[in-house]
Amino acid sequence: MNDYNKNLEKNSANFVPLTPISFLERTSDIYPNYEAVIYKKRIYTWKQVYERCIKFASALEKHGIKLGDTVSIMAPNIPELFEAHYSVPMTGAVLNAINTRLDSKTVTYILKHADSKVLIVDRQFHTIVKKALRDLNKKILIIDIDDKQADLKDSEKIGELEYESFLNEGKSNYVWKRPADEWQAISLNYTSGTTGNPKGVVYHHRGAYLMSTGSAAAWNMPNRLNFLYTVPMFHCNGWCYPWTLAMLHARVICIRNITAREIFDLITQYKVTHFGGAPIILNMIVNATKSEQKPPKHKVYVLTAAAPPPSIIFKKMENLGFEVMHVYGLTETYGHMLQCAWNTEWDNLTDDEKAEINARQGVRYPNTEGAEVMDPKTMKAVPRDGKTMGEIMIRGNIVMKGYFKDKEATEKSMKGGWFHSGDLAVMHPNGYIQIKDRSKDVIISGGENISSIEIENTMVKHPSVSLAAVVAKPDEKWGEAPCAFVELVPEKKASEEEIITFCRKTLAGFKVPKKIIFCELPKTSTGKIQKFELRKKAKELN
Amino acid sequence: MNDYNKNLEKNSANFVPLTPISFLERTSDIYPNYEAVIYKKRIYTWKQVYERCIKFASALEKHGIKLGDTVSIMAPNIPELFEAHYSVPMTGAVLNAINTRLDSKTVTYILKHADSKVLIVDRQFHTIVKKALRDLNKKILIIDIDDKQADLKDSEKIGELEYESFLNEGKSNYVWKRPADEWQAISLNYTSGTTGNPKGVVYHHRGAYLMSTGSAAAWNMPNRLNFLYTVPMFHCNGWCYPWTLAMLHARVICIRNITAREIFDLITQYKVTHFGGAPIILNMIVNATKSEQKPPKHKVYVLTAAAPPPSIIFKKMENLGFEVMHVYGLTETYGHMLQCAWNTEWDNLTDDEKAEINARQGVRYPNTEGAEVMDPKTMKAVPRDGKTMGEIMIRGNIVMKGYFKDKEATEKSMKGGWFHSGDLAVMHPNGYIQIKDRSKDVIISGGENISSIEIENTMVKHPSVSLAAVVAKPDEKWGEAPCAFVELVPEKKASEEEIITFCRKTLAGFKVPKKIIFCELPKTSTGKIQKFELRKKAKELN
Repeated sequence: MNDYNKNLEKNSANFVPLTPISFLERTSDIYPNYEAVIYKKRIYTWKQVYERCIKFASALEKHGIKLGDTVSIMAPNIPELFEAHYSVPMTGAVLNAINTRLDSKTVTYILKHADSKVLIVDRQFHTIVKKALRDLNKKILIIDIDDKQADLKDSEKIGELEYESFLNEGKSNYVWKRPADEWQAISLNYTSGTTGNPKGVVYHHRGAYLMSTGSAAAWNMPNRLNFLYTVPMFHCNGWCYPWTLAMLHARVICIRNITAREIFDLITQYKVTHFGGAPIILNMIVNATKSEQKPPKHKVYVLTAAAPPPSIIFKKMENLGFEVMHVYGLTETYGHMLQCAWNTEWDNLTDDEKAEINARQGVRYPNTEGAEVMDPKTMKAVPRDGKTMGEIMIRGNIVMKGYFKDKEATEKSMKGGWFHSGDLAVMHPNGYIQIKDRSKDVIISGGENISSIEIENTMVKHPSVSLAAVVAKPDEKWGEAPCAFVELVPEKKASEEEIITFCRKTLAGFKVPKKIIFCELPKTSTGKIQKFELRKKAKELN
Repeated sequence: MNDYNKNLEKNSANFVPLTPISFLERTSDIYPNYEAVIYKKRIYTWKQVYERCIKFASALEKHGIKLGDTVSIMAPNIPELFEAHYSVPMTGAVLNAINTRLDSKTVTYILKHADSKVLIVDRQFHTIVKKALRDLNKKILIIDIDDKQADLKDSEKIGELEYESFLNEGKSNYVWKRPADEWQAISLNYTSGTTGNPKGVVYHHRGAYLMSTGSAAAWNMPNRLNFLYTVPMFHCNGWCYPWTLAMLHARVICIRNITAREIFDLITQYKVTHFGGAPIILNMIVNATKSEQKPPKHKVYVLTAAAPPPSIIFKKMENLGFEVMHVYGLTETYGHMLQCAWNTEWDNLTDDEKAEINARQGVRYPNTEGAEVMDPKTMKAVPRDGKTMGEIMIRGNIVMKGYFKDKEATEKSMKGGWFHSGDLAVMHPNGYIQIKDRSKDVIISGGENISSIEIENTMVKHPSVSLAAVVAKPDEKWGEAPCAFVELVPEKKASEEEIITFCRKTLAGFKVPKKIIFCELPKTSTGKIQKFELRKKAKELN
């Protein structure tokens, strides 16, 4: 055996801690005048983006921000939020992008828990933030983003400084702080937390870098793609794309208010080739009016994640000219790291068979070293039979550093050397994972486990059903019984009886919803249906 | 300041040492039946490649191969060499792919220096290897590759075992050894060494992984590309593409004997989209006869590296339908990590201006953290004026671990925290690097530095000149004077006088070659012209 380590140590020539900030620096060097970030009439080149980030970072440092500090931001997908993904970590600080749909109480909780030193805030959210700050009982630096596009109906200025003037306090020759260790934290993302306080998920520079390189290969993202930023950047740092897109010197199209009309308009105007969104976005697209729909003349690739999308949506999107891939991930895994990768062997299947496959969560990204369905008690993989349920377990460099200030939850989530997703799934014989339910969403009726997703997927095949969510309703006889909440397609109608009859055609009797309620479904800002709200309603029914 | 490290340690869920072996495992899982490696009538799917590697690794382990051992291989670009990039490191051992054009003395030196435990050898090289083994004075395990395509005219069996039967000794359920540390050595590549003994460049798993992800983005390599493997895999592990191509589940077309006819045939047969090669390969393509040339109907992307290619070759390749990008790298940097990335702002330049730009070495890959032209004494960057000469210095995770068993050379090469390339270059105002010469290739005439490359680039513009190499000839008056060696285009003629007159039109008088010799140029196996041979000849002229 040779000693392949002797006199072959790391040094500053051959070892540099990974950080995605280097992607922006490089792209600014090589393609300085290429359009980078576009938002309405504002167009920044890659050099401008880099220079703005450098100056903002410098200004932050002037105001005392340093290694390990938290800088929070509350903004929609506008250039300032994109820039914060670089300017904040350039100082060694940690970016905390806050969900813009949160209530003031939760915002206060986050600012307190994260110990934020700065809050950058878009004027549209001033009312909420003012309340949140009142309860914080602590003075922090507030920087206003004075965007003319914001809905300012009840906002007034609350910050000492405005974003642009703050930025101009910075020096353009500031030297950004490369992390000394790639394990250094880069961002802090609070989970939406359906119950209890949200948990703070910590990402590091290494993971953010590897998420970028892995995502590009997984989704086959080419250099210089035109990306429409429909996925909120406060959600898993927008799937880490602010970093990926710099690596690929892409053109990034920002969007503040997501409507079907605006999506179609921007796709045409900027020849958008890629975008992503929760099924709620796809739903908006396929249900848009004929006058809003402008099917693109070029190929558009779409990623969809969050809630498992009903298979019918794939079909409808395809008919409009979109190629949709289903992906899966969690805040704890830097966004998605499973993909329903298409295999050409399936090209000749029927549409229904294809749709069935497309609804699977799939296989791991190149940056994900392990993705298994396991029995959480024994930590053994379940048989690959497409039937046996287990929990999705993930291992790799794209699993979070842990939950901030929560040792117990961190240890619990990574028990046994795998990250426990909390999602129940089966493993198909070909190695594709399919979610059957969140642990807490399973309905147990007469001792039988019922997957709410199976019922939902059946219901949305009914031509009048746009969205369906099924939860457990307490039942005297069976313990629990399925109860469905349904959104209808605009201008279509259906009765409870009609839909129950429709379900009965394909579902086992005990899986057929006992009750159907027509209403608008409550959703999180990322488009996830809030089943805990529906469970409350279902209980009240009795 | 927050402590973003407290209770947020690495564990086996969130930290996995990087290794490119994981790309093969993943691709085999996801695309088991996709064609992976094609060589004549042999076609292996990704699952088959993975299984063959697993079995070969298992067989190696049975024969005692373990962490830190060296396994050598001497073979052309055939499936066995591709597989060795996985099977050998799967055991924890280090792959040493030997240049197939070396003389037996050098092979003996390498086997001794690397302390190889095994040598896998293609029968075509048995004569050389037999001699090398005789001088080795040590018994090592020899595995024959009995390829029917090999030129076997003077070979006999020398190994105890043949590749396929050795492989079949292995177990198909062998569990490959993931490196405990990503800094673990993965391969050992000896530099061609124009003088003295070759140096052993050590690569590690981290670098090989990052080379793969960075290359894919740099060259915009899509998933499932069709890659023709014209670049020898013994050269910088074939630019690390055996790993990159698995990540992209590409189709890899092997080629043993490189001829223009075979290149064109394979491009057509397999719809080859990408290949790479030294300018010697491009030269072969553009100078092929009309009957050999089958210009492809689809777009083919070509990388060219090694010697800086004369600009005229770009033009000729483009006319045949190839899009060539010039890249630059060294064995010490895992292959190329500079690229002459095209900028659309140059689209409207004249052909000559375009060719001028294309001859530059360019800008860094996304995996390269620093690429500068510096004064090696002060380690300060030279002005970006396109004139001031300095040495190309590289920093990043794609710089070698060091030279094996050569502390002094390792330290010297990475002095001051940068890898010293030994290439002299200028930095253009737009940040593009252009090589002017190897340190030792500069001609100093009457105190003036003359770039041999500038003269060569001028000479090949002459319609009869195919290749030109300029070296210093001792000169009584000037100290040194340029002396040119020239290969003519087949069936074309030119006199010494004619070419000198041609040079005088554009070159300063002192740069015009004093002497021109028509002959076949001596080249290394990777197509680099061996200037040290020419320098010897030039001396003898006096």
